[in-house]
Amino acid sequence: MNTVAIFGVGLIGGSFALALREAGFSGRIIGVSSPGTLARALELKVIDRGASPEQAAREADLVYLAQPILRILDTLAELNAWVRPDALITDAGSTKTAIVDRASAVLSRGQFLGGHPMAGRERRGVEAAEAGLFRGRPYVLTPRSPAELERPNARELQDWIKKIGAVPIVLGPEEHDRIVAYTSHLPQLAATALAALLEGRAEPNSGVFGPALVDSTRLALSSFDIWGDILATNRGAILEALRSYIAKLEEFSREFEPAPMRAQFDRASKFAARLREAPERTS
Amino acid sequence: MNTVAIFGVGLIGGSFALALREAGFSGRIIGVSSPGTLARALELKVIDRGASPEQAAREADLVYLAQPILRILDTLAELNAWVRPDALITDAGSTKTAIVDRASAVLSRGQFLGGHPMAGRERRGVEAAEAGLFRGRPYVLTPRSPAELERPNARELQDWIKKIGAVPIVLGPEEHDRIVAYTSHLPQLAATALAALLEGRAEPNSGVFGPALVDSTRLALSSFDIWGDILATNRGAILEALRSYIAKLEEFSREFEPAPMRAQFDRASKFAARLREAPERTS
Repeated sequence: MNTVAIFGVGLIGGSFALALREAGFSGRIIGVSSPGTLARALELKVIDRGASPEQAAREADLVYLAQPILRILDTLAELNAWVRPDALITDAGSTKTAIVDRASAVLSRGQFLGGHPMAGRERRGVEAAEAGLFRGRPYVLTPRSPAELERPNARELQDWIKKIGAVPIVLGPEEHDRIVAYTSHLPQLAATALAALLEGRAEPNSGVFGPALVDSTRLALSSFDIWGDILATNRGAILEALRSYIAKLEEFSREFEPAPMRAQFDRASKFAARLREAPERTS
Repeated sequence: MNTVAIFGVGLIGGSFALALREAGFSGRIIGVSSPGTLARALELKVIDRGASPEQAAREADLVYLAQPILRILDTLAELNAWVRPDALITDAGSTKTAIVDRASAVLSRGQFLGGHPMAGRERRGVEAAEAGLFRGRPYVLTPRSPAELERPNARELQDWIKKIGAVPIVLGPEEHDRIVAYTSHLPQLAATALAALLEGRAEPNSGVFGPALVDSTRLALSSFDIWGDILATNRGAILEALRSYIAKLEEFSREFEPAPMRAQFDRASKFAARLREAPERTS
């Protein structure tokens, strides 16, 4: 792997470039983004140079799509005309079924392997990029068949994922989407619903709230510019997770007595503690 | 005000004692707690001495009840036999209607004024107590009538609340309970429901979760030993807040399209941003 093209040099794309470099990658890193972002990425030494999508795709051994999900779907369709037959195309989208299906449908050259690095920060953009972003974090790969992981370029990608400190996890695209509906998309909607409910009500204006409310609404600051694509491409799994959550809240309302509520609190704190006890992941 | 008796020398009671001292209170601070807690509180110089409930109540100008809510209800009934006629009794319970009602019913001596300092930390107990806990935080007072605030001992308490850096807010007990049902109790149940739903499911065991899930389940670590009393004494308001939250989530499910969901996200992030923009409160 000599040349990597990063499409979308934001938090994730920029961090992947920095992480590769820190892990010893000595080839070229080309960025594809808006002119302003490319200028800033060059200044911050995140990429070696900027290029058009066509130029970048024609040169790259690895095409890394770190754009918003719907933009990735569009890029995939364009790439086929340009990409080298031995190139690996991967992505960092937060939902996988729509992307993997689109790749199968439109790519007749190159190999595709979907990915989802489960890392993030509150700040976005290339300015927030950092080499350590993926360290200790899960990096999901979503082949349609196990054989896709055995190809030389896919093996090389997995090696780099380990070298940047992330933990590769292999899942089918649908399985991935069903899991993140519960572990990522539902927590987002639960926080958004809470904040949307409170907005416009008199209560918070009184100033009568504690630090817990500030914490509980942190995710509600998330931008719909990112979440719109996620909701649009994981609709079925998210609606199912929402239904389960509503059912659990209805259970609370129905069984609002000390014994069953103690059991719920115990169950919840067991989960929260277990999540925190998870051994620090290292490659 | 020469002698303060703190009933329940934990995080709140201990912090109130430390805060009074730091703000220049030069009288005596007596603690009423278990022998182990009193020993630790003396060691940490949080109190001047320990005493029995009766001894402490007979000496105090201010009786500060910082016990769990149901324990406060029991203490109020006992206090009447001991408390000085000119003493002020206040409390730091997280719900107010049950406590204010009980005080009216059982106290024929002394004055009562309910309170709720909206401060907290993840750690509990006297070891976690700190003089700055109330600084910049709301301190709700819940008189049954405005006249209660005008009595000399109630005025003196309000002065100390300001001196420790807290911001006094006056609300009726029922109004307080209805507000905190939305701003404190609902966020707790939303987090507990999310964590209780995920416990036992296969998803989190896969390791496929991001930092957001860890944040979203932090409140789920809360102990039912505290929350059981809150749920028991604010049942009606909490069930109403739960119903509103369920209705909002059902609205999400029903209107799961880009335009209405963008409106919900915008509404939610407006609220979350407003909560954070609130000017730092100072007395």
